[in-house]
Amino acid sequence: MVDAFGGAIGLFDSGVGGLTVVREIRAQLPNESTVYLGDTARVPYGTKSPSTVIRYASACAKVLLARGVKLMIVACNTASAHALEPLRESLDIPVLGVVEPGAQEAVAQTRNGRVGVIGTLGTIRSGEYERAIHTLDPAIEVFGKACPLFVPLAEEGWTCGSVPRAVADQYLSELKRAGIDTLVLGCTHYPLLKDAIAESVGDAITLVDSAAATACVARETLDALGERVDDDRKASHAFLVSDSPDSFSEVGQAFLAQPVDHVEWVDF
Amino acid sequence: MVDAFGGAIGLFDSGVGGLTVVREIRAQLPNESTVYLGDTARVPYGTKSPSTVIRYASACAKVLLARGVKLMIVACNTASAHALEPLRESLDIPVLGVVEPGAQEAVAQTRNGRVGVIGTLGTIRSGEYERAIHTLDPAIEVFGKACPLFVPLAEEGWTCGSVPRAVADQYLSELKRAGIDTLVLGCTHYPLLKDAIAESVGDAITLVDSAAATACVARETLDALGERVDDDRKASHAFLVSDSPDSFSEVGQAFLAQPVDHVEWVDF
Repeated sequence: MVDAFGGAIGLFDSGVGGLTVVREIRAQLPNESTVYLGDTARVPYGTKSPSTVIRYASACAKVLLARGVKLMIVACNTASAHALEPLRESLDIPVLGVVEPGAQEAVAQTRNGRVGVIGTLGTIRSGEYERAIHTLDPAIEVFGKACPLFVPLAEEGWTCGSVPRAVADQYLSELKRAGIDTLVLGCTHYPLLKDAIAESVGDAITLVDSAAATACVARETLDALGERVDDDRKASHAFLVSDSPDSFSEVGQAFLAQPVDHVEWVDF
Repeated sequence: MVDAFGGAIGLFDSGVGGLTVVREIRAQLPNESTVYLGDTARVPYGTKSPSTVIRYASACAKVLLARGVKLMIVACNTASAHALEPLRESLDIPVLGVVEPGAQEAVAQTRNGRVGVIGTLGTIRSGEYERAIHTLDPAIEVFGKACPLFVPLAEEGWTCGSVPRAVADQYLSELKRAGIDTLVLGCTHYPLLKDAIAESVGDAITLVDSAAATACVARETLDALGERVDDDRKASHAFLVSDSPDSFSEVGQAFLAQPVDHVEWVDF
């Protein structure tokens, strides 16, 4: 079924986190329509095994393909780490993840060749950021740290004050001791905690947010394919979820930085 | 298929939390075999809608029934809140939840008639504890508070120190102001945070842990049916999961308070 979203950019994530990528797409590509799928019945992916994540990611991609999207963005670090290659092999449209753009930006930013990466357990265990960084520059030392509490903190809306700062201090102290000068926020939830993370690590460490880098790569990809919308047509934005739309709208607003309206439940 | 676990007590939860109930069953009914299913591919249930939780709970019950269990314990507050009645209607064996035993214990403990209940968003929104308490004593005032960060804190193993105390203080201050004298730990994860919660609320508030109350009701139920194992046969304990067994064994140990061995992956 190809419906009204035909020609849109399709994005999916396990939940609300990928809305930070939608926000960047809407900022950098204001004429492009988007259709976002949050697999909220199966959230989170970050604690699940690679084979389970691949199974869920394939199901998400199928839902978006049925909407006729022209470009697929895996707007979730865990799914990018595990499922990008299987999706690229099986789909006929270009597939972008958030790991490669984040890695590129980190390589461009570091001066001392010591890069930290924070993310979910699944992302860090996969070692995908390290691999992507080493493909670009094998001399860079990469220090990974899983920070499982950051996702529930962001979703709870506890993004400033003593609790996020205490959690950030506990997670990030070993990365500071490792002498990194660049820190990749390797989870789409983490931009909401940017202030607490920045306070904890101090000014000497540059934070890399992969959402913005991913939107930039999406623009380049559409340009290369001649598929970028360059007229002033009104873009449409759709949201699909696999669990109740209500809490998605409520929690998602902070991630999209605007209201999340017309959320549709899909069963898959 | 009825296999070697025939006649065991079946328990399920979305993840590792229900192992606190297994621990109490093993303490109070040492001759009974158990088979525990952690639906780790779909964890957590606490943020999901009632219809999704009912669907998952029914699938879990089916897996345990195929193992020939004689008694089903829904060892998860969220699933107890949403799925207990549908399961009782569809199954031929007795089905126990953790909400009713916890409510009974709270009613027995309170002196001033003001009871607090903490749990996941799903449990608190369901209002099931309030309903169960009011069935026993309509005069008791019930104050519910969702504490979404307690589950990831317990799973991260951050059960003492400044972070859990700061989180507990932030969540529990309004319950303290409400003048409760009894607080139900309405989530199977929370016993791990009992010390931080107790420190935060102080000595004047009695904590109710529903896992122990549930094991007591299980014993009474088996006695009433004449199905309690009263000889000294060696009990067997099996663990099934829907995602990777490795992290379940690792994280589960703190919940069971002993090693979690021989974890089997089941696909459903």
